Amino acid sequence: MPVLVVGSVALDSVETPFGKADDVLGGSGTFFSASASHLTTVQLVGVVGSDYPVEKLEPLAARGVDLAGLERADGESFRWRGRYRHDLNSAETLETRLGVFSHFRPKIPAQFRRAPFVFLANIDPRLQLDVLSQVESPKLVACDTMNFWIESRRPDLLELLKRVDLITLNDGEARQLTEQTNLVKAARWIMDRGPRYVIIKKGEHGAYMFHGSTIFFAPAYPLEDVFDPTGAGDSFAGGFMGYLARTGDMSEENLRRAVIYGSAMGSFAVEKFSIGRLLELTSTDIERRVRDFHRLVAFEADVAQARAAAGGVGHPVRA
Amino acid sequence: MPVLVVGSVALDSVETPFGKADDVLGGSGTFFSASASHLTTVQLVGVVGSDYPVEKLEPLAARGVDLAGLERADGESFRWRGRYRHDLNSAETLETRLGVFSHFRPKIPAQFRRAPFVFLANIDPRLQLDVLSQVESPKLVACDTMNFWIESRRPDLLELLKRVDLITLNDGEARQLTEQTNLVKAARWIMDRGPRYVIIKKGEHGAYMFHGSTIFFAPAYPLEDVFDPTGAGDSFAGGFMGYLARTGDMSEENLRRAVIYGSAMGSFAVEKFSIGRLLELTSTDIERRVRDFHRLVAFEADVAQARAAAGGVGHPVRA
Repeated sequence: MPVLVVGSVALDSVETPFGKADDVLGGSGTFFSASASHLTTVQLVGVVGSDYPVEKLEPLAARGVDLAGLERADGESFRWRGRYRHDLNSAETLETRLGVFSHFRPKIPAQFRRAPFVFLANIDPRLQLDVLSQVESPKLVACDTMNFWIESRRPDLLELLKRVDLITLNDGEARQLTEQTNLVKAARWIMDRGPRYVIIKKGEHGAYMFHGSTIFFAPAYPLEDVFDPTGAGDSFAGGFMGYLARTGDMSEENLRRAVIYGSAMGSFAVEKFSIGRLLELTSTDIERRVRDFHRLVAFEADVAQARAAAGGVGHPVRA
Repeated sequence: MPVLVVGSVALDSVETPFGKADDVLGGSGTFFSASASHLTTVQLVGVVGSDYPVEKLEPLAARGVDLAGLERADGESFRWRGRYRHDLNSAETLETRLGVFSHFRPKIPAQFRRAPFVFLANIDPRLQLDVLSQVESPKLVACDTMNFWIESRRPDLLELLKRVDLITLNDGEARQLTEQTNLVKAARWIMDRGPRYVIIKKGEHGAYMFHGSTIFFAPAYPLEDVFDPTGAGDSFAGGFMGYLARTGDMSEENLRRAVIYGSAMGSFAVEKFSIGRLLELTSTDIERRVRDFHRLVAFEADVAQARAAAGGVGHPVRA
């Protein structure tokens, strides 16, 4: 099943302790699409300026990303310039030029309107609401947001919450939105206002998925070399939604697995600049990392069961 | 099998956003003992001053903590006074009075010297080394440390590393010791210098156990109300070592379970001041929390296996 994503398609200039990249593909829609395209077909809606190197999006099209909803407008493309210091935990924004993105009004092509899975990437909540008025009974709608909208568009964001099934946001944003320090309380606050599922991302510290009274936690993959954290969150969302769309299975067990696919895709995204690593991935790489995640957290709570599984023999302490 | 712990037995005065406690039982040896006593017998070595309310340790003795190694010296007991701000992430030390602890020279009673499991809690590495000269071929020796010793006793700490099987330390301490920002690299740096196992604790963000090329990650339990974080790390160590001593099984699978028992005991410790919550716990509480941890991270990496386990039926997407 296809997943529809509405988000930014930008040009990023990034400095990390390991290097520098100028005017490379970026934006939430781009990272999401590159990630989700490994798992399902993607319908991308966004806008670029007349200066955008659209030929660089060809690898995405080749991977099954339908660009029919990518509008080309007169003017400059959305550009973001940022820097990461040595700890790589937070980006320092050096410059944001919205360009044509400042007048973006998403127009969902007729053939995208029945997409069963919809991801409203981090854009103005008014536009996110507008997208919802253009789609027809999706099975699952998820959204992302950021500090800027929480501050400046709170009423719209609260209206949006009523109309989405799931929201992904980071821990700082969850605390800002809910004014709750404790993330369990923050998640409940959000669920009380609409979404059945809340995913709180903690960057290098992993992610929680809340649903009713259950909590699932996925660690971040312990990489030795994080090259560029840009796009990790959108790649997470792409892996998560892509996996749900591919399987069409909304059981708790499958949602957990979707969180792991999201974490896996996020962990790949940070290994190179831009969508470089996402484009070169194979399905074998992805499946292997999902199994690595399993091995990272797996333990048998019940000793009797574990002993039975191991043939009843415990390993004695080495003297 | 018994576990021997050498550490501080102190009086803590703590302020948190939720309350205040004065001169309550504290110290690494105390938290470790209260925690481990749920899983095995504990031999505690430490020192208190003539002012120490030793009768308050009776509940520990009743739980099987052997206090024969608890020296009473003339002078004041070790006192720590600290405060936690709203985020509860780091203690602000308001006052430390070492008292009799400043002249502490651990004397391991003859009947403790053959303890198979030894935990050298956070004290001067020279004293930790001195303890090792007093014990006879333990099966597993683990140690903790802190920023103060990393700074002031580096050569002794490096000597200690050669002689322990396992070290627990927090992420900041691991980075300070190794001068590696990345925790995977930090753990390898430490393993190269002696310990076969390295546990890096990240507080509310969980803990890693490194061993050879394998990594295990345990989240922190997502509590809604953290009351007082004091002693969480020592309670973790008590749960971890206590579980290993109880089972005597050093297999990778069992070590993973021990990390979960440690995490469970750490999560209980923060629910009340001092060792209040640890003292009232039942084994049912502990087993339930271990199962909760399992549920928190469990997912089936292999869909085919998961489907088979579920009887071959996937839950369809709700329309």
